Amino acid sequence: MDYEEELAGALRALRQEGRYREFADIRRKRGNFPHASYFSADGQRSIKVWCSNDYIGMGQHPKVLKAMHEAIETAGAGAGGTRNISGTTHYHVELERELADLHGKAASLLFTSGYVANEAALSTLARILPGCVIFSDEQNHASMIEGIRHGGGPKRIWAHNDVEDLDRQLSEYSNDTPKVVAFESVYSMDGDIAPIAEICAVAKKHNALTYLDEVHAVGIYGPRGGGIADRDGLMGEVDIIEGTLAKGFGLMGGYIAASTNMIDAIRSYAPGFIFTTSLAPAIVAGAVASIRHLKESQVERTQLQERARELKDRMAAANLPVLENPSHIVPVMVGDPVRCKKLTDALLERFGVYVQPINYPTVRRGTERIRLTPAPYHTDEDMDYLMDALNTLWQEMDLARAA
Amino acid sequence: MDYEEELAGALRALRQEGRYREFADIRRKRGNFPHASYFSADGQRSIKVWCSNDYIGMGQHPKVLKAMHEAIETAGAGAGGTRNISGTTHYHVELERELADLHGKAASLLFTSGYVANEAALSTLARILPGCVIFSDEQNHASMIEGIRHGGGPKRIWAHNDVEDLDRQLSEYSNDTPKVVAFESVYSMDGDIAPIAEICAVAKKHNALTYLDEVHAVGIYGPRGGGIADRDGLMGEVDIIEGTLAKGFGLMGGYIAASTNMIDAIRSYAPGFIFTTSLAPAIVAGAVASIRHLKESQVERTQLQERARELKDRMAAANLPVLENPSHIVPVMVGDPVRCKKLTDALLERFGVYVQPINYPTVRRGTERIRLTPAPYHTDEDMDYLMDALNTLWQEMDLARAA
Ligand SMILES: Cc1ncc(COP(=O)(O)O)c(C=O)c1O
Ligand SMILES: Cc1ncc(COP(=O)(O)O)c(C=O)c1O
Repeated sequence: MDYEEELAGALRALRQEGRYREFADIRRKRGNFPHASYFSADGQRSIKVWCSNDYIGMGQHPKVLKAMHEAIETAGAGAGGTRNISGTTHYHVELERELADLHGKAASLLFTSGYVANEAALSTLARILPGCVIFSDEQNHASMIEGIRHGGGPKRIWAHNDVEDLDRQLSEYSNDTPKVVAFESVYSMDGDIAPIAEICAVAKKHNALTYLDEVHAVGIYGPRGGGIADRDGLMGEVDIIEGTLAKGFGLMGGYIAASTNMIDAIRSYAPGFIFTTSLAPAIVAGAVASIRHLKESQVERTQLQERARELKDRMAAANLPVLENPSHIVPVMVGDPVRCKKLTDALLERFGVYVQPINYPTVRRGTERIRLTPAPYHTDEDMDYLMDALNTLWQEMDLARAA
Repeated sequence: MDYEEELAGALRALRQEGRYREFADIRRKRGNFPHASYFSADGQRSIKVWCSNDYIGMGQHPKVLKAMHEAIETAGAGAGGTRNISGTTHYHVELERELADLHGKAASLLFTSGYVANEAALSTLARILPGCVIFSDEQNHASMIEGIRHGGGPKRIWAHNDVEDLDRQLSEYSNDTPKVVAFESVYSMDGDIAPIAEICAVAKKHNALTYLDEVHAVGIYGPRGGGIADRDGLMGEVDIIEGTLAKGFGLMGGYIAASTNMIDAIRSYAPGFIFTTSLAPAIVAGAVASIRHLKESQVERTQLQERARELKDRMAAANLPVLENPSHIVPVMVGDPVRCKKLTDALLERFGVYVQPINYPTVRRGTERIRLTPAPYHTDEDMDYLMDALNTLWQEMDLARAA
């Protein structure tokens, strides 16, 4: 066994498939989003970011930054322990209250990320509800897939957003079998939105719990930023809502909101929650400020939708193959991993426009794309510049136009 | 299936065993460690923390706080994306360089926590080295156990720190079978230290890789804070070193350091690394400052050892059942979960001394204990006060004294 050779082989496989990832080294400019510094081999230059998931720029909101500065001055840098051993600060207690309130639930629980929230919650459900079958939408995020896999219990995959398929599969089990239906609201790569009401109705008919990932919706949909279920008045229908602090809210960390017993059971049994240092006070304090602001303020949400609509319209007018959808996400199809990478390389190097190629396994082969995330801080001039760059490269590279 | 009843049952089981956890709601006072505010039902009061894993108080070090403030002003709150999609900031690149240098390795890789580092690295090793057998010390941390379990490959448990048992078990496999020996340097509950040189020699003899968790040692052992392997000149013998930014370094986040191919393979294949928002710039900048400081400064390490020696000596002189060990951790044995909880409740409520009871499953039944973590900022007067409180309660509760 030659370990180095074995590892080199695993890496060669990725390069041959054209899906070896190189990270762009950047630093966003606070107060000046979407501008960022790009650090390349030849030095540092200014670029514009079009692929951030800080969807409405809360990562530079003065209230958020102020709360972070204050928490650092008050309580220091890290939490200093796990939640059970000196790591439950008053900030954590406050944030869990805010999150429960945001989603109209009795309780909530923080994790170090949205990934860990999904992984820990779903794997623990299999443990505390013995024999539990998990019904997973086929396009669920990797963190849900890993959580379900680690739970080790039976699972069923249902066709994406297909309520009839879900109904049929659920009906194969008796009402006594514990069941969980796991799905997302906004799917981040296509930007489509799940029929939450229908899914919850079918789940209820078969006495199944519902688990909804609102990661790409919290902060940015609903009158108080509670996500799509908030917007559609459906939070009461969903049993467990999962979210992140890292996208709409602009920080990092994840959570679930649910009934008191559900939260208490996951809190008590999930290794991924118990055996890790809790989130730093500054992060938690920033999240409290962000959530409180977005419970009241509509302007960020309104602007986000306006900017997304504007960009999609410009794409359509230019015959670029934008994927129409009802969300703020703007996917433009390329359909080949190598050309997709070449396109984004040229955007960055020649135009200072930063987007990442989205290739397999994040999306299905043949559906490679760029994924643009317009934000309130992208101006009309930013869009002019982006459209020029895209039109030029589409032409030069002879990429497919919209039908 | 009545879900609420099922969950309530799972919680009743914990209460009956006396191991239901209640989190103390506290907030440390920056510039004034070990002082903290304790938020109870009756209001807020001042307490002293004796169970923080911010072992040398880097969580309040001015250089760390300054770096955090600056990063917030420069780059904002969150990173805004996964490492691949706009979330690799220049801070992350710098920190990975510092960590590789700290451990004398070619490369390093950041994760959102030490837990995720162990979970992701160990589960991915099973994937990229097909057929790999993992040899796990029986007292390994939950995060390693979960990572090994999720990898789904064959595993062998060897007796704690028992090099002969490891040798015997390794010898059952041919040199062609990929093998990883996973262990810790400082075991956090007993404070004992692994025989790293002997373990690495046996591993090498059988052509096995070594994976060492230095979570409770980084920053606080070794001339540059590289951990026990640094102190003993053994970093070159270990293939993969794992650590946290959340204990000695005072922040949050985790990492591994290893060869270029190893880091690149785990970077490319680990879902727990790929599909999650990267650490916030302020956390990363703070970690860079903390590590750079501790590469040069010895005073924190010297004081930590002096304070730990002093506390252990006082315990021994008072006939309290302290567990002697070669590290900075001071466990005092109680041997019963209910009395252990009663002791720590009385310490907090009557004396304002905050330590947590350590009960099963964190330690074996019958070895319940309190775990004290003296730090450079604990004064002689803090120790006088602590010893008085312990002596009073040991007497009142008729707890066992040292033999
Ligand atoms: C649908 C979905 N769920 C969960 C996550 C994980 O959230 P976090 O970045 O907070 O780990 C992501 C992306 O990162 C996601 O796209
Ligand atoms: C031995 C060991 N490894 C890993 C971890 C996890 O580190 P983190 O707190 O950074 O998740 C811990 C404790 O938290 C630990 O005790």
